[in-house]
Amino acid sequence: MKNIVIHLSYDGTNYSGWQRQNNSKSIQEQIETAIYKISHERVNLIASGRTDAGVHAINQVANFNICSDIPCEKFAYAINSKLPDDIRIISSYQADMDFNSRFCSKRKTYLYKIYNNPIKSPFDYKYSMQVTKPLDYDLMLENTKMLIGTYDWTSFYTMEKNNPKNPVRTIYEAKLIKDDKFIYMQITGNGFLYNMVRIIAGTLIEIGLHKKNMNITQILNAKNRAVAGATAKACGLFLKNVEY
Amino acid sequence: MKNIVIHLSYDGTNYSGWQRQNNSKSIQEQIETAIYKISHERVNLIASGRTDAGVHAINQVANFNICSDIPCEKFAYAINSKLPDDIRIISSYQADMDFNSRFCSKRKTYLYKIYNNPIKSPFDYKYSMQVTKPLDYDLMLENTKMLIGTYDWTSFYTMEKNNPKNPVRTIYEAKLIKDDKFIYMQITGNGFLYNMVRIIAGTLIEIGLHKKNMNITQILNAKNRAVAGATAKACGLFLKNVEY
Repeated sequence: MKNIVIHLSYDGTNYSGWQRQNNSKSIQEQIETAIYKISHERVNLIASGRTDAGVHAINQVANFNICSDIPCEKFAYAINSKLPDDIRIISSYQADMDFNSRFCSKRKTYLYKIYNNPIKSPFDYKYSMQVTKPLDYDLMLENTKMLIGTYDWTSFYTMEKNNPKNPVRTIYEAKLIKDDKFIYMQITGNGFLYNMVRIIAGTLIEIGLHKKNMNITQILNAKNRAVAGATAKACGLFLKNVEY
Repeated sequence: MKNIVIHLSYDGTNYSGWQRQNNSKSIQEQIETAIYKISHERVNLIASGRTDAGVHAINQVANFNICSDIPCEKFAYAINSKLPDDIRIISSYQADMDFNSRFCSKRKTYLYKIYNNPIKSPFDYKYSMQVTKPLDYDLMLENTKMLIGTYDWTSFYTMEKNNPKNPVRTIYEAKLIKDDKFIYMQITGNGFLYNMVRIIAGTLIEIGLHKKNMNITQILNAKNRAVAGATAKACGLFLKNVEY
């Protein structure tokens, strides 16, 4: 038995998300099926985190246990031969048996893309949140800096099934880059709560539209989800990197 | 009666091309239908050129005659409200009645995107030709320079229905830009024959793979389609600009 790690990239547009589900196409199921086709082994693929429907990944990390004698670094090419074009394995290698891509992750980086133009883009609407009214970039940048630190993120996550979690997380880096009509928000943290990046993005957008009369620090202090902005669209979100 | 010019952008992936056809979704039909919905007038939309199935446009130009009293510059917003997300009108304005977007065009610029990486990209496969073996950029660049000038392009076009055309065209500019894993070929000319840009791109790719023992000048001089490379994929081609 070997523990194989894969790095992968996917366009989440046509999937119900990472997690295997009945009656819908998931990233996990597509890859597990591809692995079965090349090895005749049924594996359980564990990802660093489950991305939601429509969310993309530039560099997701996952692992699985397998007996196959396919050379570890050849798994990437072999699995790709059985995958649709919108999912690609970038690399594959062997890790210690106790490596778990979910529980061993130390830092994750997410990218949120905003397209700010009166006319939406036919090429980018599946890969960004399209905002047609002008955004106040300087005000958004000032607020982005307030994200850095260790805080209680109660205002910035969606509670699942009435099941509150420890809401404390640390954001190490938060950047907001303007490039022509795009604004890229990139944040690195030790972990993220459910919908946290999308709620941060949605709040920054409302701040940029001058629709909020509180800044990020004030919203954090309120510890109240109703005070933050709407959850920004899934299609603007990219899992960019996972560090171990 | 007014003559309205529109500039537009589209993702050609899901269309059978520009031209209206029975039993298939075309860009022309989508826009003509949208114009009908806002004005109750049936117009005939003329484009600077008909793009093929799967070909994209960053800035296509088209025009139509209409009696509607919708202000000329408002057509863009009105038409967009009735269009799918993968087609967007960028602007609209009135022109003289004798302006014809097809016959009055003086220069056109096409962009061809090549993605050169052993692993294909899940985000770019619909918007580039994916070449997994390494390309010799310097050799391709040297050959790109040979495209500039007035030549007989017989080697570089697909003859339609045994109907030869005057094969002389002038290329004013030809650039080849490398940016990380992408190679962008951009050419500006007074007009292009059928499949000409895609055959030039396909030939440059074969030159870059060291699969051709002739250079562009030698292929031009041969005046023989069989000597050039294969027609590169439609999905890598973008109509970038039209000048009048």
